[in-house]
Amino acid sequence: MSDYKTLWESLGMDLEKHDKLCALLPGFYEEVYLSQEKRPQGMNYFNLVVSAIHGLRPQELVNHKTQGEKVVGTFCVFVPDELIFAADAIGVGLCGGSQFWVPDGEKVLPKNICPLIKSFMGAKISKTCPFFQSCDLLIGETTCDGKKKAWEILKDYADVHVIHLPQMKSEKEFSLFIKELEILKEKLEEITGNKITEDALKSSIELINNKRRALKRLYDLRKQNPVPISGKDALLISQISFYDDPARFTQKVNEICGELEDRVKNGEGVFPSSSKRIMITGTPMAIPNWKLHHIIESLNAAVVVEETCTGTRYFENEVKIKGESMNELINSIAERYFKINCACFTPNKDRIHDIIRLAKEYKVDGVIYYNLQFCQTYAIEYYNVKKALEKEGIPNLLIETDYSESDTEQLRTRIEAFIEML
Amino acid sequence: MSDYKTLWESLGMDLEKHDKLCALLPGFYEEVYLSQEKRPQGMNYFNLVVSAIHGLRPQELVNHKTQGEKVVGTFCVFVPDELIFAADAIGVGLCGGSQFWVPDGEKVLPKNICPLIKSFMGAKISKTCPFFQSCDLLIGETTCDGKKKAWEILKDYADVHVIHLPQMKSEKEFSLFIKELEILKEKLEEITGNKITEDALKSSIELINNKRRALKRLYDLRKQNPVPISGKDALLISQISFYDDPARFTQKVNEICGELEDRVKNGEGVFPSSSKRIMITGTPMAIPNWKLHHIIESLNAAVVVEETCTGTRYFENEVKIKGESMNELINSIAERYFKINCACFTPNKDRIHDIIRLAKEYKVDGVIYYNLQFCQTYAIEYYNVKKALEKEGIPNLLIETDYSESDTEQLRTRIEAFIEML
Repeated sequence: MSDYKTLWESLGMDLEKHDKLCALLPGFYEEVYLSQEKRPQGMNYFNLVVSAIHGLRPQELVNHKTQGEKVVGTFCVFVPDELIFAADAIGVGLCGGSQFWVPDGEKVLPKNICPLIKSFMGAKISKTCPFFQSCDLLIGETTCDGKKKAWEILKDYADVHVIHLPQMKSEKEFSLFIKELEILKEKLEEITGNKITEDALKSSIELINNKRRALKRLYDLRKQNPVPISGKDALLISQISFYDDPARFTQKVNEICGELEDRVKNGEGVFPSSSKRIMITGTPMAIPNWKLHHIIESLNAAVVVEETCTGTRYFENEVKIKGESMNELINSIAERYFKINCACFTPNKDRIHDIIRLAKEYKVDGVIYYNLQFCQTYAIEYYNVKKALEKEGIPNLLIETDYSESDTEQLRTRIEAFIEML
Repeated sequence: MSDYKTLWESLGMDLEKHDKLCALLPGFYEEVYLSQEKRPQGMNYFNLVVSAIHGLRPQELVNHKTQGEKVVGTFCVFVPDELIFAADAIGVGLCGGSQFWVPDGEKVLPKNICPLIKSFMGAKISKTCPFFQSCDLLIGETTCDGKKKAWEILKDYADVHVIHLPQMKSEKEFSLFIKELEILKEKLEEITGNKITEDALKSSIELINNKRRALKRLYDLRKQNPVPISGKDALLISQISFYDDPARFTQKVNEICGELEDRVKNGEGVFPSSSKRIMITGTPMAIPNWKLHHIIESLNAAVVVEETCTGTRYFENEVKIKGESMNELINSIAERYFKINCACFTPNKDRIHDIIRLAKEYKVDGVIYYNLQFCQTYAIEYYNVKKALEKEGIPNLLIETDYSESDTEQLRTRIEAFIEML
C-alpha cells in the first residue's frame, strides 16, 4: 500500500505507526482468507479492496473532497446513509475491529469497555486510519453507555454530531426518532452546503435499497446446502458494505451472487453438505475481526448466517416510500430503521423472534451467541435468548471475547466441543 | 431481629438464607459505625432503624398493605416519590448494596456488570429482602444499559413498570419525560385503585420537599470546619432517606441538625479542624455499602460531601409548584427531576459544574471519584471530570471497586497515599 504515502501525508496521519499496522494485515489475511478452498471468483474484487484497504477507497474519499463535497463517518446501523448520500456526502462506517488500536483507545477510555469502542477511539487519536482522517463529520448515537459517553471524549478530536436513539419503541419514541432525523438532515445540509431535496432523497433511498437487496440475495444463497460461500467470505462482504461505494459494491455483490447461483444449480459448495451449520447472533464484527468465524470454519463447520449489525440487521427490510413529500420520505426512512431489533431497546422481543425465524430459514444446527466483552446490553439479553432457543430445542453457546488472540485456543476448545455435540 | 419471623414468613421469604444475612450485620455495623467517637445523640434513631432494618419498616409496609394500600419499589433518584405517595402508596428505594446478594444475582446476570444491579437482583430472586417482598410494583428506568436490560429478567419475578428516561436534555426529551410521568401516574392509579388528585399531589410535593430541605440543612452543616458529623453518619442518613417514612425521617433529620448546629456554635466537631476534607463524586452507595467512607475516615480524613445519588443529587433543588392543574404540577415535578445531572445524559457538563461548585462550597482538599465496577457511564465521564478538576487545581483520585472486601487493603494504601499528598 506504499503508493498511497502522499495521500496519507495529506491526511495528517502518523506514518510510522501506520506502517506497523499495514505490516500486520497481509500475513493475517493470507492465513484467514486466501488459504480457503473453492473460493468464488467473485471474491477477487473484495480481496482487492482489502489489499488496498487504506488506499483505494480513502483516495476516492479525498477525490470527493477535492470536488468540494464532504465525507461523513458513522458507527451504527441506525444512522441512515440515505440522508448522508442525499446531501452529496459519502458515508463510511468506522467501527474499529482491530486490537492494534485498543491500547491507544485505552489512553482516554476505561479498559473495561467494549473493544469496538476502544478500537475506533484509538484509530482516531493515533491518526492511523485514513477513513477517520478523511471525515468532515462523525455521527454518533446513543445505542449503548460506552458509545454514548465516548462521543464526549471524541469531540476533543473531531466534529461529532450525536443522534438520540430512544430506548423503547412506542409511538412517542418514534416521534422522537423522526425529530432526530430532521435535526440530522439540517446538520448534513449545514456541513455540506447542499440542500437535501425530495428527489435526491428518493435516489439515495433507491441506492441503499439496492445494496440491501443485493446483500439479501447473497444471504438467501447461504440458506442452501451445501452452502456456496464460506461464512468468512460473506462476513467480509458485509464488512466492506459499510464503506465501499454503494453502487459499485451492489454490482459486485450481484456478480458474485450470479456465480453462487450457478454453484447452487450444480450442487457445489465450500463445505460438505454434512457440515454443521452455525448461526452467529449478537454484537457486530468490524473489519478485521474475523476471529470467531475463522475458529468455527477451521473446525469444518459452516457459518451460514449472522444475526448481527454486520449481518441481517444491516440489510433486512427496505425503505418503503409512502409519499413524495420530505416529511413522508423521512417517515418512510424512520419506519425502516425502527424495525432494527437491537439490544439497546427494552423490551426487545422481536430480536428473539428474528433469531428463531433465521435459525429455521437457514436450517442451522446450532447458535453461537457472540458477545464483545463488556457489551452489557447483549450480554444481559442472552438470558432471554437462551430461554427461547432452549424452548425450540436449538443448541446454543455463549462466547464472550475481545480482539486479542490470548483466548483463541480456549475458544477453539469450547467451540469444538459444541460442534461435536450438534 | 428474630421478633419478625412471622412477618418474614408472611412475605414468603427464604428464612434460612435470610438468617445468614441477618447474622452479618450487627458485627459489621458495630465495627463501622458504633466504634466512632463523638457521635451525635441524634444518630440513635438511625442506629435503631439499622438494627431492625428488616423488621421495623417492613412491618409498617405490611400494615399499610393490610389497609388495602400499596407499596412501590424504586431504584433511581429520577423516579418521583411525589407521584407514588400521592396515590396513597409508599415508595421504597431498593438498590442493593450488599455483597451477600451478588452471587444470587450472578445466577441470571453476567458477572461483569455493576454490583448494585447484581445485588438487587439477587435480593429479589433469593427472597431474602422483606422490602422487595412487600412491593406490589417495581419501577425501573433506563438510566444505564445494565439496569435497562435487567428489568427484562426481573419481570420473571415481579411486576415491573419501566420509565423511559431520555439520554439528552433538550426540549423534545423534556416532553418525552413529561409523557413518561403521565404514564407512570396512570400505572400508579391502576395498581392502587386511587385517583391521584391535584390536592394529594400538592401534599406529597410538600412532604418530599420537606425531606429534601432537611437533608440540605444536614449537608450545609457539613460545610463547617470542624465538621460536626462524620461522613459515615451522613451517608447512613442519606441511605435511610430512601425507605424510611418521609415525615418521620424529616423530623429526625431536623432534630439531629439542631444538635449539630449547637456543635457548630461551640466549635465542636468529629474530626480535628486540621483533618483533610474529602468529597466523593460518582456512583451511589446503597446500604450497607460503607466501604469507601470507612476506609477514608479510618485514615482520619473527613468525608464532607457526596456528589452522588445517595448525596446531593438526591436532595438538591425542590419541586417549585408553578400552577394548580395536574399538567402544571407534573410539569413542575419534571422540571425538578430534569435538573439531576447523571452520567446517563450526554452531554452532562452541568455535573462538572456541580462538582466544582460543591468542592468550593464544602472547601474540600481532594476529590475521590467513586466508580462502581463496570459502571460505564460514570467511568467514561471521569475523563472530563478529571480534566476540569485539574484545571481548578483540585487533586483527585479514581477508585473503581465492587462490594467485596478483597481489595480493601489495596484501596486503603492508595487512599492513604492520596490523603498524605493533600
